[in-house]
Amino acid sequence: MDPARTPEPPYYAVIFTSRRSSDGDGYDDTARRMFDLAAKQPGFLGYDTAQEGVGITVSYWTDEAAIAAWKRDADHAFAQYEGRTRWYDTYEIRVARVERAYGFVRA
Amino acid sequence: MDPARTPEPPYYAVIFTSRRSSDGDGYDDTARRMFDLAAKQPGFLGYDTAQEGVGITVSYWTDEAAIAAWKRDADHAFAQYEGRTRWYDTYEIRVARVERAYGFVRA
Repeated sequence: MDPARTPEPPYYAVIFTSRRSSDGDGYDDTARRMFDLAAKQPGFLGYDTAQEGVGITVSYWTDEAAIAAWKRDADHAFAQYEGRTRWYDTYEIRVARVERAYGFVRA
Repeated sequence: MDPARTPEPPYYAVIFTSRRSSDGDGYDDTARRMFDLAAKQPGFLGYDTAQEGVGITVSYWTDEAAIAAWKRDADHAFAQYEGRTRWYDTYEIRVARVERAYGFVRA
């Protein structure tokens, strides 16, 4: 899997870090549905995700309005509720404005 | 491992996403040294890291000047050079201003 490619800044990143609980029932299916659903939202630019002890998902968005609309999406809101009820012991969400970016690709 | 705890925004996040090459020689040792060294820099607030196909490390900093100083650190600069020469096929670095943050901790 390659890191996400995004357009030139400025744009927004939502940094979601978490520690899962021992209850993983239904998590994988919902996570997959949420990634599919997020990808269809207006203003969605891509995401990166990895889990290794801590889970980190960074999603990229054109602007704050797109982030707010996705947060309010009904299916997503229910997944957030299930996350707090069952799947996460703790999480942190940071909304950040990407101001500059650069990369490297092996020749 | 718990997600990093950080002070109230605003502060900065450096989002480093990567895909490793097949050459991992010396990587673990250097990565550990760089995390230890970063933690001693003025303005460092914490980090989250996970690798699962893609690698994601998000480090948190008080301001852009602290990020620039860490980028210029001599040991870190050599590690960056080794990374491009050997350890990474591709990476992306995004410097972002964290504007708001909220979290959840199970009661």
